[in-house]
Amino acid sequence: MATGEFDIIEQFFTHPVKGPWQSQGVGDDCALITLGQQRIAVTTDMMAMTTHFLADANPEDVGYKALAVNLSDLAAAGAIPRAFFLGLGLAQRDDAWLSGFSRGMMALAQSAGCFLLGGDTTRTPVVQGQHAPNSICITAIGELPPDAGLTRAGACIGDDIWVSGFLGAPYAALMHHWGKWQMSSENFALADVRLHRPEPRNQLGQALLKIATACADISDGLVADVGHIAERSKCQVLLSWDALPVHPSLKELDDEQLREALLFGGDEYELVFSAPVTARTELQALSKYGTVSLHRIGTIRSGNGVWLETKDGEQVSVTGGFNHFSEN
Amino acid sequence: MATGEFDIIEQFFTHPVKGPWQSQGVGDDCALITLGQQRIAVTTDMMAMTTHFLADANPEDVGYKALAVNLSDLAAAGAIPRAFFLGLGLAQRDDAWLSGFSRGMMALAQSAGCFLLGGDTTRTPVVQGQHAPNSICITAIGELPPDAGLTRAGACIGDDIWVSGFLGAPYAALMHHWGKWQMSSENFALADVRLHRPEPRNQLGQALLKIATACADISDGLVADVGHIAERSKCQVLLSWDALPVHPSLKELDDEQLREALLFGGDEYELVFSAPVTARTELQALSKYGTVSLHRIGTIRSGNGVWLETKDGEQVSVTGGFNHFSEN
Repeated sequence: MATGEFDIIEQFFTHPVKGPWQSQGVGDDCALITLGQQRIAVTTDMMAMTTHFLADANPEDVGYKALAVNLSDLAAAGAIPRAFFLGLGLAQRDDAWLSGFSRGMMALAQSAGCFLLGGDTTRTPVVQGQHAPNSICITAIGELPPDAGLTRAGACIGDDIWVSGFLGAPYAALMHHWGKWQMSSENFALADVRLHRPEPRNQLGQALLKIATACADISDGLVADVGHIAERSKCQVLLSWDALPVHPSLKELDDEQLREALLFGGDEYELVFSAPVTARTELQALSKYGTVSLHRIGTIRSGNGVWLETKDGEQVSVTGGFNHFSEN
Repeated sequence: MATGEFDIIEQFFTHPVKGPWQSQGVGDDCALITLGQQRIAVTTDMMAMTTHFLADANPEDVGYKALAVNLSDLAAAGAIPRAFFLGLGLAQRDDAWLSGFSRGMMALAQSAGCFLLGGDTTRTPVVQGQHAPNSICITAIGELPPDAGLTRAGACIGDDIWVSGFLGAPYAALMHHWGKWQMSSENFALADVRLHRPEPRNQLGQALLKIATACADISDGLVADVGHIAERSKCQVLLSWDALPVHPSLKELDDEQLREALLFGGDEYELVFSAPVTARTELQALSKYGTVSLHRIGTIRSGNGVWLETKDGEQVSVTGGFNHFSEN
């Protein structure tokens, strides 16, 4: 969720929660709800063709990614994916599209152990005689040990900031798609896979339950999402430019493009998290023997917002990220 | 969900469910999931302005009804509403609309004890330079005693069929809105409230947990929804025309209009359920002292599909209901 969205949620959709089901509250990647001896994590994502997916995107990629972004939210909470619910608005019944969409979604569901247990299908509304593009709403539920679960709150002054994987590829692929950036076909192919087939970091998230102090997935961009950790943990994040893990497909980019892709590019679905300095050895081992490499990219200090130490050693405040409601 | 939707779900979205979270399966009002000593019911509804709501509907009514239809699904399972998650696609940021929408939704949430614990906001896609109408996806979660929960399966031969409240008003109001049917302004006002402000029958649903053998809420129309009970319970429903409870606003309708409204009109959000003959006294008491009157409208017998005993004592097969995908 981006800034304008938080604002809408705060203004219109925050209300006193009474009764037995309390949660970490609206505004985190997941709601964490305690049910007797159980705890569940719940997340919802609303998406549409042409807004969240290229109009001509392969339906198999769309099905895959629609579920993957929800699994990524569960990963950020450290939850084991268990079930999901699908709301599907269709412009028309197009069996070829549905078949591809379902194949991509169900293959990921099976491999993640997260099963489709319900849903609703309807037609999209008509605009000037034409049905609106397909829309997709997924609610995914994961399981947590009692009293466990990562949120964006909890980072402590002195903690390190870590990120999984390598950054920048999804944004660069999108810029190339739009004809704005030049990339070789080889590098574009490498980057494009990261745009269409993000890998939700569920095993990492579960491993971090006892290590990380705060965690988020990078959907809006590194600065925007560590900014959420800073805000909810009431602290400042200082990132080190030289430490940012650059995706190998970005070799051809100039400095400005690289800055844009690494700091502000969304759609990464990597985890960014804080952890105490004492956890370094354990995290280095996890990076070496786990499912994805981990990189230490900054520290937590007192203050607020997100700062960057540039390659010249200067410290500058950075802001930004993508906001659906600041466009046109 | 209507026929074309079931077909899409069966063809594209049914897959083997493994692991600890099993459910009654896709196709019921709710998924019922057992978590250790707890059981939860989960339902998802996808809606859009102009498709599910009149384009000029009062936003407060839209917010109310969007949540009410989900609470109604929880009622059909007998679950206590606990939490919901909101996916909201907005054509633009319109604070007057958001404020009304939120007021209607949050007032019902508070009174039902079902709290908003998460969500996602985005913009609707652009069609020919114009953002598509607002769309709403709600996932609601309710709580059930262990091993309890009503589904559409379970009706037994010889059971009675009961319905809550009085039927026909929402459909008649819609026909009047569309200029197709004539109603006095007094009767229209009575009917219109039922269209915009359906009352989810959650207390009734919870009371039925130990009484009913199968239950559904009437969203697609009486015949369509008892048809789901017939199909899932592998039996035939025989409705009695003379026993159908006619909403007092329908006095001016002719026989054909009445048949259309009572048998095929959707958007009722009353509960239709089967119960053994031995439960009649208990249900009559519940009707008299409970939150809504109950009416015995038919019986379960062997066979399949839905039949109607007309006022002439003839028995005819009835089919129908609303199907989003059979239009244009």
